[in-house]
Amino acid sequence: MKAKELMDKEFVYLNCDDSVIEVSKIMEEIRRFTCPVVNDDKQLVGWVTSFDITRGLREGNEKIVEIMSSYEEITTIHEDAPARLAVIETADNKFVTLPVVNDDNQVIGIVRSCDIVKLLSSLYDIKVSKLYEAMQHQLKGVTWEELMAASALVSKKTTGKKISPEEYEANIMNSTFGEAIWATGGLEKFFAGLISVGEMVIARKVGRAKK
Amino acid sequence: MKAKELMDKEFVYLNCDDSVIEVSKIMEEIRRFTCPVVNDDKQLVGWVTSFDITRGLREGNEKIVEIMSSYEEITTIHEDAPARLAVIETADNKFVTLPVVNDDNQVIGIVRSCDIVKLLSSLYDIKVSKLYEAMQHQLKGVTWEELMAASALVSKKTTGKKISPEEYEANIMNSTFGEAIWATGGLEKFFAGLISVGEMVIARKVGRAKK
Repeated sequence: MKAKELMDKEFVYLNCDDSVIEVSKIMEEIRRFTCPVVNDDKQLVGWVTSFDITRGLREGNEKIVEIMSSYEEITTIHEDAPARLAVIETADNKFVTLPVVNDDNQVIGIVRSCDIVKLLSSLYDIKVSKLYEAMQHQLKGVTWEELMAASALVSKKTTGKKISPEEYEANIMNSTFGEAIWATGGLEKFFAGLISVGEMVIARKVGRAKK
Repeated sequence: MKAKELMDKEFVYLNCDDSVIEVSKIMEEIRRFTCPVVNDDKQLVGWVTSFDITRGLREGNEKIVEIMSSYEEITTIHEDAPARLAVIETADNKFVTLPVVNDDNQVIGIVRSCDIVKLLSSLYDIKVSKLYEAMQHQLKGVTWEELMAASALVSKKTTGKKISPEEYEANIMNSTFGEAIWATGGLEKFFAGLISVGEMVIARKVGRAKK
């Protein structure tokens, strides 16, 4: 996935000569705390945040060029850079937005932290039962009931609490991958638990085949 | 994980009688686009964004109470609610921030979208090799070389491209869980691949034990 596949294309360009007052109204209307400033060739030349606007309104600045951050202060990401880089830049610098540029340094979109949250959380929001279905599909010849029975056993061994296969099934139908990771204490532990389940059912399956 | 474990405790309270001009300076200084407004008991009564501030400065409003959103318009999350709910609210509503309240409706922190990005991306930023180490640890008696050999075979079967166990190992040392999910086309597919690998090495292990 590339930065350009993650970016928001609905944004407003500003020009250096735009009026601070007019821009403040536009930013309120489109509800954007940040906006890129471009030249006549739509190349990035500056950056404006609501903080620049409030300062500009207070101090009576008239034009965007008087209040914007200069080009040198702006962090950008290339459209073909991995989306993951945009995520890391945003996480490390606590950015709200990150402009995406092409080879000609034209702004073609904005990566927004709320869009990243949506993307990452959607990946996390898969029901655990879907992973079990993928496991069952992969392990041809293993029944759903065998998977649940093995999972209930592994769960008891790990947590010390007795749980029936039916209760286990109800749990994974309702819980998501994200919740499971948080509940088990991390991806590696969650994954190790699943491998245990896989090991148990595969051992049984191979055992049956050997008979 | 609860909302309170995800929230930022470094924030500034505003009062209804605070001056719009003074608040604009504070928000620029602490670099926050949003701030909660509280009463004398620190209970949430309103919400201010930079958009309210720019409008207030333009229109000459003096006090925060004149420009703030009223309590009824604010989405909050309880401190003990699952962190996942805060993530979903943020993703679905494209929030930049979400106030966290206690039983007395006092604001005790703010969940920020950039903090969620940091949390979610850190979970994704685990090297794939760590998952293989967890698998090897779980499957006692399976060597690292067996795992890599099985993975190279499964990879060839899935992608059609030949890859040596050594090349496979180099790949998983450098790539993260997030990259692997994006590369394989989703969590379920990534997971199915790992189960294939597990199935292959377990079958060999069980085969050895039967001899």
